[in-house]
Amino acid sequence: MSRKIEIFDSTLRDGAQGEGISFSLSDKLKILTKLDEFGVDFAEAGNPGSNPKDLEFFKKAEKLGLKTALVSFGSTKRKEINPEDDDNLKALLTANTEYIAIFGKSWDMHTDKILRVSLAENLDMIERTIGYLVSLGKEVIFDAEHFFDGYKSNPGYALETLKAAERAGARTLCLCETNGGCFPEEIERITKEVIKATKTSIGIHCHNDSGCAAANSMAAVNAGAVHVQGTFIGIGERTGNANLSTLIANLQLKSGYFCVPPESLPLLKETAHYIAETANIALPNSMPYVGGSAFAHKGGMHVDGVSKDPATFEHVAPESVGNERNILISEVSGRAALFAKLKKIDDSLEKTDPVVKKLTDKIKALEHQGYQFEAAGASFELLALKEFGRFQPYFEIIDFKIISSSYSNEDNGSFSKASALIKVRVKDDFEITADEGDGPVNAIDRALRKALEKFYPNLKEMRLVDYKVRIIGGSDNTAATTRVLIESTDGRRSWTTVGASKDIINASMIALLDSLEYMLYINREINFN
Amino acid sequence: MSRKIEIFDSTLRDGAQGEGISFSLSDKLKILTKLDEFGVDFAEAGNPGSNPKDLEFFKKAEKLGLKTALVSFGSTKRKEINPEDDDNLKALLTANTEYIAIFGKSWDMHTDKILRVSLAENLDMIERTIGYLVSLGKEVIFDAEHFFDGYKSNPGYALETLKAAERAGARTLCLCETNGGCFPEEIERITKEVIKATKTSIGIHCHNDSGCAAANSMAAVNAGAVHVQGTFIGIGERTGNANLSTLIANLQLKSGYFCVPPESLPLLKETAHYIAETANIALPNSMPYVGGSAFAHKGGMHVDGVSKDPATFEHVAPESVGNERNILISEVSGRAALFAKLKKIDDSLEKTDPVVKKLTDKIKALEHQGYQFEAAGASFELLALKEFGRFQPYFEIIDFKIISSSYSNEDNGSFSKASALIKVRVKDDFEITADEGDGPVNAIDRALRKALEKFYPNLKEMRLVDYKVRIIGGSDNTAATTRVLIESTDGRRSWTTVGASKDIINASMIALLDSLEYMLYINREINFN
Repeated sequence: MSRKIEIFDSTLRDGAQGEGISFSLSDKLKILTKLDEFGVDFAEAGNPGSNPKDLEFFKKAEKLGLKTALVSFGSTKRKEINPEDDDNLKALLTANTEYIAIFGKSWDMHTDKILRVSLAENLDMIERTIGYLVSLGKEVIFDAEHFFDGYKSNPGYALETLKAAERAGARTLCLCETNGGCFPEEIERITKEVIKATKTSIGIHCHNDSGCAAANSMAAVNAGAVHVQGTFIGIGERTGNANLSTLIANLQLKSGYFCVPPESLPLLKETAHYIAETANIALPNSMPYVGGSAFAHKGGMHVDGVSKDPATFEHVAPESVGNERNILISEVSGRAALFAKLKKIDDSLEKTDPVVKKLTDKIKALEHQGYQFEAAGASFELLALKEFGRFQPYFEIIDFKIISSSYSNEDNGSFSKASALIKVRVKDDFEITADEGDGPVNAIDRALRKALEKFYPNLKEMRLVDYKVRIIGGSDNTAATTRVLIESTDGRRSWTTVGASKDIINASMIALLDSLEYMLYINREINFN
Repeated sequence: MSRKIEIFDSTLRDGAQGEGISFSLSDKLKILTKLDEFGVDFAEAGNPGSNPKDLEFFKKAEKLGLKTALVSFGSTKRKEINPEDDDNLKALLTANTEYIAIFGKSWDMHTDKILRVSLAENLDMIERTIGYLVSLGKEVIFDAEHFFDGYKSNPGYALETLKAAERAGARTLCLCETNGGCFPEEIERITKEVIKATKTSIGIHCHNDSGCAAANSMAAVNAGAVHVQGTFIGIGERTGNANLSTLIANLQLKSGYFCVPPESLPLLKETAHYIAETANIALPNSMPYVGGSAFAHKGGMHVDGVSKDPATFEHVAPESVGNERNILISEVSGRAALFAKLKKIDDSLEKTDPVVKKLTDKIKALEHQGYQFEAAGASFELLALKEFGRFQPYFEIIDFKIISSSYSNEDNGSFSKASALIKVRVKDDFEITADEGDGPVNAIDRALRKALEKFYPNLKEMRLVDYKVRIIGGSDNTAATTRVLIESTDGRRSWTTVGASKDIINASMIALLDSLEYMLYINREINFN
């Protein structure tokens, strides 16, 4: 049977140290629940002593009854104080978790410069802190901070810190590559030496400052580590922590280790995107396995290759991690890629059909204007359907006007800042209406829906998921071209549309209208009565 | 002396295969010039046969007289045709470069399934293509496509393809890890075996599909490769190519190899950002060495550590790669980090000054509203200066109104879509003016400048570099909170400001006003006459 590797996620603790990351209580509970559904072994979530919100989190988390073990995190006790009297440890115990991660110093330079205690005092702090927690029945993971830098500076002492934790009864000795500057061969060598010198199970915790966090973690596992710490999407201080979504796939799918239930792997992409969305960050398209471009093909030859045999240009099957192949539309790939994409919309289409050439030209012209269809499948599909003559517009905008005014430095919910009036036509009916909103796009969105819902009541089910604005081209002033991407959902599916214009309102309108049209189109059985 | 490793950048060829990447002729020339200034050995730039724009590029590039060797890229000739009659090779030669990269198949599966030629025919195609180019005096780099997958499938045949290129006189045999699925230990082992079996210098070309592109490239170099291919900021098909900015720092700064002139290393960050900006993508903050967060510290203990000794939490000095330490302001870091940042603004500030507590509270409240100061140093500085009583507003907005109308699917430059009127006060003078623009923010920006330039003529030097909009918090509709970041420059410095509001116009106004105030503040000697 393949070797079990424990997966220890620190999104809620080390991940929260990432620039721009700030979790609310509800965010934390959502992420924890998702990690549990996916099946990681441990989820680390900070010290309840640091703020009252965290204590509330641990109380609520306890009631969820999860399989994933929740881990609280704290440091060794202060010197010259008994562990039972240490305020930080007292606070830590209020989390009431079975598992506790305790970090201590393994680098002599830190003992001296940061903690300002002697080498012997530091060993005593490690041993007595862990010993005390173990005496209370806790399972303790010892995070040996800066272990590798420490080992390179003073191998004997670094090992002593592990042995102090081992004597005290730690369940796992986790070797932390805190500064992220090591390379795989040193990680492998040092981990092997540690395994020879200790009896407790060994963990690894890497950062990505040399771009080697994944390879370093793998090197430790290959050397015998059985516990891998990281964050699911790699967020964390500086360049981030080891990315668990990459590591789980590398270890389980490609290296024969056992990390998570096999049925979890196809949830990899969805879990990563869910966590990114909850953390309110854009998941990089280039992220291995789970990124939007991880299986995207643009080069003509590559597109041709995967259409003959996916293994020609894909190291794993996209479906195995819940991702999908994506053939990109662009100048570089030209007509072959476009045709592959059009085939998905109309299976009977022939390569020689003049509509293929016509659409290629149209897309090139729109790309030149600032459009980009790579991420806006719904706008692309509408464009194709219109060219195929298979799309009838559901409505027409006759006129609109938006008025914005009254700049204010404080947001005041009760006071509307933009108003819009709109006139639409649906078949032979006209509707003129108006609404106000928080900002011009919201005002026109509301007015437009008010007018259209009269004709198409199911538009009520549609909601906006994301609204992205990108300034492109001439970057000389606020008049540069604006590209707007709108992601919408009807609760079952989601789709993305694009608009580009020098006017942000105009670009937003184009994307918004496409989004409404697409909603009406995919639910046409419901609309056409 | 340390071993020289050739740096081969493929931003303009493999990088252009990345999702969302599209270079204009002028972009390509700008990037090439920047790569030359930085000092990479080779810059690869595609096949002039693929489109007329590329031929023009090669013609213009030749005239630049660069030290970096420009490389054109093409495939082996078709079977049953003489190299001198092959249309692709003819096109390739029009690039008129001394160096040519020729890719050929090293994986038997590809020879069979993609090329549909016999194993012997493929060897003949490699040997005759390279032999022909060498006979014309060209220096040929053989890109052995899918070399590692090929070697794992049929080591003897994979080696045969290298030997065919070697017999024909290739200067470099570059082992391509095309599907990006390999791990460092296999790369190292196979590279060593190749070096034993051949006499020509060996190169490495990795992709990041397992998150190991940097470690894989390093493994090949450690095994004896002397030529590293990648893209400067890691862009490329799927998960991207090996990131040269990471690799150059890893190899030269940390592993004792010699890649680029030593004086180039402090240009690493700037070069990466310049290429990202030209490629019109946001450089990930988490990118090793060059990212905005690569030396950012948020955790209280880490902030405390680097203030005592940078080596405690930094693997290299930020200055060595032209980056800088960044102390982040956030809930997690609390008052210590904030104080470190405030010290930079007012060196005489004491930790106990009540203004520190007051600013901490204010920033927390603003963060709660959707502001984020981590990336908006200028807004943070203005906030602090106001609290210190060291800032007098340069102007006051009395009133404004913006009218947007007339949605149009086609941009028509001659037709203005938004107009704005504004009333401002500067000391005791009032100015009422109006302007129109491409979109509401541009209209109000223009009207505002028109009014203010009367009082502060040097505002004419200020221009917008980037305008970013991020939708945050409640993602239920177009009324979600909007955060706007504006980067501006006066040609010497650049600064970023932030605004947040449910109204995108309001958020933009806040950031825009901060940006103007900051410009006036930093150039106050010029303004205060």
